[in-house]
Amino acid sequence: MKDIRTLLQTIREEKPLIHHITNFVTMNFLANGVLAAGGSPMMAHSEEEAEEAVAASAALVLNIGTIDPSWLRGMIAAGKKAKEQNIPVVLDPVGVGLSRLRSETVRQLIEEVRPDLICGNAAELSYLYEGNWSGKGVDGELDGTSAQLAQLAARKFNTAVAITGEQDYVSDGSQTIAITGGHEMLAYVTGTGCFSSSMIALFLAKGLETECSIVERAAAALTMLGLAAERAIETANGPGTFQVHLLDALFNLKSEELTTASRWSEM
Amino acid sequence: MKDIRTLLQTIREEKPLIHHITNFVTMNFLANGVLAAGGSPMMAHSEEEAEEAVAASAALVLNIGTIDPSWLRGMIAAGKKAKEQNIPVVLDPVGVGLSRLRSETVRQLIEEVRPDLICGNAAELSYLYEGNWSGKGVDGELDGTSAQLAQLAARKFNTAVAITGEQDYVSDGSQTIAITGGHEMLAYVTGTGCFSSSMIALFLAKGLETECSIVERAAAALTMLGLAAERAIETANGPGTFQVHLLDALFNLKSEELTTASRWSEM
Amino acid sequence: MKDIRTLLQTIREEKPLIHHITNFVTMNFLANGVLAAGGSPMMAHSEEEAEEAVAASAALVLNIGTIDPSWLRGMIAAGKKAKEQNIPVVLDPVGVGLSRLRSETVRQLIEEVRPDLICGNAAELSYLYEGNWSGKGVDGELDGTSAQLAQLAARKFNTAVAITGEQDYVSDGSQTIAITGGHEMLAYVTGTGCFSSSMIALFLAKGLETECSIVERAAAALTMLGLAAERAIETANGPGTFQVHLLDALFNLKSEELTTASRWSEM
Repeated sequence: MKDIRTLLQTIREEKPLIHHITNFVTMNFLANGVLAAGGSPMMAHSEEEAEEAVAASAALVLNIGTIDPSWLRGMIAAGKKAKEQNIPVVLDPVGVGLSRLRSETVRQLIEEVRPDLICGNAAELSYLYEGNWSGKGVDGELDGTSAQLAQLAARKFNTAVAITGEQDYVSDGSQTIAITGGHEMLAYVTGTGCFSSSMIALFLAKGLETECSIVERAAAALTMLGLAAERAIETANGPGTFQVHLLDALFNLKSEELTTASRWSEM
Repeated sequence: MKDIRTLLQTIREEKPLIHHITNFVTMNFLANGVLAAGGSPMMAHSEEEAEEAVAASAALVLNIGTIDPSWLRGMIAAGKKAKEQNIPVVLDPVGVGLSRLRSETVRQLIEEVRPDLICGNAAELSYLYEGNWSGKGVDGELDGTSAQLAQLAARKFNTAVAITGEQDYVSDGSQTIAITGGHEMLAYVTGTGCFSSSMIALFLAKGLETECSIVERAAAALTMLGLAAERAIETANGPGTFQVHLLDALFNLKSEELTTASRWSEM
Repeated sequence: MKDIRTLLQTIREEKPLIHHITNFVTMNFLANGVLAAGGSPMMAHSEEEAEEAVAASAALVLNIGTIDPSWLRGMIAAGKKAKEQNIPVVLDPVGVGLSRLRSETVRQLIEEVRPDLICGNAAELSYLYEGNWSGKGVDGELDGTSAQLAQLAARKFNTAVAITGEQDYVSDGSQTIAITGGHEMLAYVTGTGCFSSSMIALFLAKGLETECSIVERAAAALTMLGLAAERAIETANGPGTFQVHLLDALFNLKSEELTTASRWSEM
């Protein structure tokens, strides 16, 4: 297991620019979260500036939460440019099974952009892998097999996969890490799932010196988020204060506190 | 008067999915508010997925706060599908008298969708009813006649009407309830008006077993919001902490605390 | 130096309506900030209602943070109408050097709308003035010459200019004020730059009786924001609580506390 504390320290020094084409609902939270964790956020969706925005960035998040056809064009243009320049792309297939628009959008993004990592909950990854959609609330039920799902989906799509839930899993098809931590209050704040993708993009940012694999980097991101959630809940009285304290905890978390001990298990 | 405590308990068990086509400004707050109160929020505006998104939902909110013609198309498609499937539709005619675009949008939504409830402030409902627009700040002045306005507008548009202000009123033209409670600090947080519509949609959600009428369900939603506001203000130092504590209070409010006593008067 | 305390008092009495065509990321924060400071916010971007929305307003903010061509059309229409009616226009050229879309948008807005004030950081104003783009993080480095940059840019574009950073500068080409205050935590909350423009628009609102010049009014706005930030940091534990307490501080700040003493220096 590699030293993820140095990785966080490097992120805080470099403040990598994390570009997002994401949904309207959680944009503000993602921007504040990336800032608190140590990066620089950017949001710009217009096809007209897609290539220039990507060229200035160290990672790209594509999130389909409030997708429509005009935003998809910006995503494709930005995604292709990112891959050309070896800038990591994280795809968040929010609610992929809800509609043909969403499943078709994700199919097109996977084929044309070839993201480096797909991050979603078990329902979303299961739909992507099997084509069955069981919708909201399914995370818990599938948790026993999420490790296998992450592994199989990673092989099928030839990309890394992160599945978030009570326990998180990251796999590239051969290396698979299970991460414990976090708190159930995360489910009562909108955008904490989206924010997992932003955190992963921050830890995958181009140009960071590290010996960690992509799976370890993504697992480090989710570990940091889980640890911050555990601290936030200590002083929270509900989901309102929890969200605010989560930003404080991300900001105050020292890199030496980011440890894999008793949190990671390789499978 | 029916038992609204059981209604809230049922909502928390069922966690109904409340679909929104709403404005950019308050989306995040509405999503967090619905989660805190006990429901599941969804936001998706694209005409391409309007019908599928509605089919997965238990209620639909249409809010014209940052309307433009492309979003109106999604609203019409979603609204028609909802009515087809007996999914309740709440219309929030934000700033309807500001422009021809808005008044024309609302006219079209009322005619083509036939919402189950229209929720706005006295200025908005007065404009809808009479065609006169006196704009911001008018709530207070009209408060004496808001009960009558709710009743007349409900009859004119053949729908339930909720008028929010210092005192709230809900009417379906025959049954009319006045609700006291809340706090003036609500006026210093953007989106608390929009959130009234989301709360009402949550309490009107399809599939909830209850003996309450639509007027009583909407009144229960506004009662819960008022009660949460009163708790939030106790620990708030201004509008920033008030908003955060409001989410906490919605989350922590026990269903047995939701009472109509000394809060409701039938008129 | 004029009495800026009376100006704030007048704002709180009049509650001027500040219209925004701005970015998706920070809209909610700007609306809550304007409310907390004492104004009424409005956001509406559609070209179809641009003129009517402006006609109801006392100031207009144009912010290109998430610009695309359809929003630019609304900005041009709203901006022209504002100038026709002597409603002050504040332009925030967010990330102007990032792309051709942005630099072309700003060029067009300056030429066709002729804003009353341009508010940005040193990197943005430097790009506008010199056409060189050095991007993120440049504020600090340029700070020594920001006073001069504000002055030169004001003359070049025949408008007032505000440059925000560790120290803020406002100039109309002849009168130049440097403002100290604020806190570095402002850089860890998304939208505090955008909010500077909203605050300035609030203090420039049409119809406020004051003997202050435009430069003094803008400087008063930035003084209030800095003072609120200093109070917010006292009780904050990180960027999450800081943002929330900033809204509280804006709301609680008494007009008699707004002083230029030891904060302003004319240059």
